[in-house]
Formats: sequence, structure tokens, C-alpha cells
Amino acid sequence: MKKISGLLMSFALIVSLVAPAANAKTKENNNAFKDKSMHVQIVLFDGFDLLDALAPYEVFGAAGMYSGGAVTIELVSAEGKRSVPSGNGPALEAQAALDPNRSGIILVPGASGKPAGNSEDAIPNILSKAMKTGLPDMLKRAFNNKEVTVATVCGGSLLPAMAGLLKDRHAVTNHMGMAALEAAGAIPVNARVVEDSPRFVSGGGVTSGLDVALYLVERELGPQIANAVEKLFEYEKRGTVWRAEGIVPVDFNTSPTASEQKQPAANSVSAAKQ
Amino acid sequence: MKKISGLLMSFALIVSLVAPAANAKTKENNNAFKDKSMHVQIVLFDGFDLLDALAPYEVFGAAGMYSGGAVTIELVSAEGKRSVPSGNGPALEAQAALDPNRSGIILVPGASGKPAGNSEDAIPNILSKAMKTGLPDMLKRAFNNKEVTVATVCGGSLLPAMAGLLKDRHAVTNHMGMAALEAAGAIPVNARVVEDSPRFVSGGGVTSGLDVALYLVERELGPQIANAVEKLFEYEKRGTVWRAEGIVPVDFNTSPTASEQKQPAANSVSAAKQ
Repeated sequence: MKKISGLLMSFALIVSLVAPAANAKTKENNNAFKDKSMHVQIVLFDGFDLLDALAPYEVFGAAGMYSGGAVTIELVSAEGKRSVPSGNGPALEAQAALDPNRSGIILVPGASGKPAGNSEDAIPNILSKAMKTGLPDMLKRAFNNKEVTVATVCGGSLLPAMAGLLKDRHAVTNHMGMAALEAAGAIPVNARVVEDSPRFVSGGGVTSGLDVALYLVERELGPQIANAVEKLFEYEKRGTVWRAEGIVPVDFNTSPTASEQKQPAANSVSAAKQ
Repeated sequence: MKKISGLLMSFALIVSLVAPAANAKTKENNNAFKDKSMHVQIVLFDGFDLLDALAPYEVFGAAGMYSGGAVTIELVSAEGKRSVPSGNGPALEAQAALDPNRSGIILVPGASGKPAGNSEDAIPNILSKAMKTGLPDMLKRAFNNKEVTVATVCGGSLLPAMAGLLKDRHAVTNHMGMAALEAAGAIPVNARVVEDSPRFVSGGGVTSGLDVALYLVERELGPQIANAVEKLFEYEKRGTVWRAEGIVPVDFNTSPTASEQKQPAANSVSAAKQ
């Protein structure tokens, strides 16, 4: 016991050294973002992927801790409070019904299962079943609510896509689902995180959920909270969030004369230097 | 519905194009690693961190899918089958009691809570409570079982450390717990994943659980399975796994004459070239 006490005291010592700086920072944030807060609803459906849902959940949770409670999170389902079986492990308890009228973030994870085939546990089947629940209609209402940002992770992008909500909108999903996304009328973008207008943010494969959540924390609460979560998690947000703005890069794959077109500009720079 | 069917057919088409190559690979693996399989027990205790436990869970689960069933996973607790409250979200159901006599991997997550203070939800308190359960004794038996690899994620390293099991062993934990790890007699190593002998593998902060699990999948089932999981998750294993072997790098921080000592060797190379 003596050993353990000593160990914990040592642990407490380290954190007490770190704590004053952290507290000062929190106070500063609370002033600058005084009225800033975010409510996050994470949507569970039968066969959802655990990590798609819980990696963002944990990022938002840590952001709540570091912001002194500026984040609230709920696990929800279209049907309300119930135990929702995941596709790859234990069930999670949804605490309430998804409320598309409530402002904040609504995050939709993907399904977990076999990427191919027609079996009961194949991803296309799981998503197809989710489309037969109240979820598509609720997502439609969420997309129409200007106080809501819908975020998706991995195959989660396919649910609004299948509901016809991503027509001509930029989005990403797991690389294996990109063609399906396009078939549903979305404009697939090869980026880890894609923001289409300020109110739809999608992420690529499973682990991109960390990046989607870190981006939303930065957008809503500022960079210091996102940075504190990164340090705690020993993870750094990956990838530039793609948005339909700024200079569009030359596409060297589809424009064979692109490099020639670029040449005069390069020449004129060196000419100007002479 | 027509839209949805078309979409799913398109999804199925992509995966069917991918499937033959994947199947061939799986068969090859099944031959080369014919009798290879791994059983993973993931240990839950009151206040455990969700992502520490479930990120490895999902890596092992996907490895099981890609290996045609070579991985089995159980959520366990010292007390047996019960609902175990996490420190940062929903409870998870432990399916069975931790069995230190069963060969395979035993993975210990960290706690989730306030990194500082003496409150009920502070990490030192949560770990201290876990030390009063049957867990330390079970971990001791696991360390003594030559058929078991104990793996830890984040603050999970502190549990065997507090049980006196990491004396003079190399280990890592969340950067905030490194001094506590040292105070418990372990040799702290600043690496994302540390392997001490083939039977103890520790990871740093929360997200390093992905890397711990990917490393163990590669070690037990081969690189192709680990690579397939990486592609599915859109994540690449980070960091070289530190082991106490090979050339020890010059420490330029503690050896002020190190750069001078290095000089003659550099000179002799250029002399040989002349």
C-alpha cells in the first residue's frame, strides 16, 4: 500500500505541476468563448460500427472536460431509449430519441460488417435496414435545420446519401464506398475530412472520426481545446479539411497540357526577376 | 427504393471487384499460418477508458474477419460477467471472468477521468480502486504464464506497475503518467509502443491502442492481416516498436562529448575515401 500511495502522490505531483497552466488557459477560453457550447447527438442504429461512434464520442467528451463543461453528448437512436446492438461487439445504450430540432452536432457512424456479399452481416444489408427505420426522415429534418451540423464517419455518409440528401454535395466515406456515394448523386472528394457548406462534415474510413471530431471542436470551441485533446490522446489531427473554396489545383491527371499551360507563368516569374 | 437498390448494387460491385484478390490472400495466409490463432481478453474495470479498450477491440475484430476467424475476443472483468461502468460514457458488458491461465493476449486499458485532483472521478482514484479488486493478483498470474502476452494502453500500464510487476521492465504510458511509471520501478521509454521481452507490450496515450493492436496482429498473424486492417481503418501503424536490442543510439542530451567522440569515426570515413 505504501508503494501505491507513493506512486499516486508522484502521479498527483506531476499533474499538479501541469494544472495551473491548464486552469489559466481554461479561464481565458471561458471568457473568449463565453457563450460557446455544443450539444452532440451520436446516432446509433442496429449494426453500427463501435469505433466510428465512440472515437468522436471520446474526443467530444475530453473537449467537454477541458472546456469546463461546454460540450454535452448523448447517444441517441431513431426509436428512442433502447439497447442498440453494434455490428462488431457489445451493444450500447441509446439514452434518448434523436432530436433533429435540437441545435448542435448530429453525428452518424457507419455500419460494421462484411464489406461484401449479401449475408445478414454484410454492410449493404445493415445500411439498407437502417434506411427502413425512422432515421432517413429524421436526417432530412436535421439537414433542413440551420442550427444543426450533420457529421458522418466512414459508411455513415451513405445513409444521408441513400436518403437523397447529398445530391451535388461534396462528401467522403470509406474508400470502398466512394463509388456508391457517387452513384447516390454526391460529389466524392478524396480527402480525410470534407466540409460542404458549414453544415455537413464527412469523414473517410473508421479512424477519420477522430479528425472529424477534432475539427468540429476547433470550429465550435476554438483551437486550444482541440489541441488539449490531441495532447491527451497523443494524436494529431490528420489532413486539411477540404472545402469548396480557394484556388482549385491543376488536375495533372485529366489535363495533359496542364504542365505546358503552367510553363508561361513560371517563365514570367523568372522574367520578372531578371 | 429503386435508387437504394441501385446504390447497393454499385456498392456490391466495387466490393466484388476487390473480393477475389482478398480471398486469394486469405487462403495463402491460412496455409502459411495454418495453426495460428489468437485469443484476446480485454479487461474492463470500473472507470476504464472506452477508447483504450475499444480501439484495440475493433482492430482485433477486423483481423478476425480478414483471417477467416483466427482471432477470438472477449470483454472480461476480474469479477466475471457483469456490466462495467466506463469512466467516460456508457457501460460495457463483460462476458466472462479474466482467465490468466488462458493463452493469448490480455489487454489492459487505462482509466478515464480528471488527470488531476483527489475527486471521485480523478484517474489516480480510479486506478487505486481497481488495485483493490482481484485484478492485480490475476495480472500477476498472467505475467507468470509463458503463454500470455500482457498488453497495456495509456494508463493501463500503471496497473501492473502498481502491482510491482514492472520492476526493471521497459514500458510506456500516457506522457502524463511517465513519472508515476518510473516511481513504480519501471524503466520509462519515450516510444509509442514498447515491447519488453516478447510477453509485455505497452502503449502510450489513448490512440496508441491502435498501434499496440496492429503490432500484435502482425506478430501473431503476419503483416498481411495487419495491412488489411490498416486499409479498412484508413490508419497506418505509427512508430517503431521499441525493444531492448540492437545498437543503442548515442544520447546527445546526457553525453556532452558525444559529438566529439563521433568526430574521429567521421574523419576515418573521409580518410578512407581519399
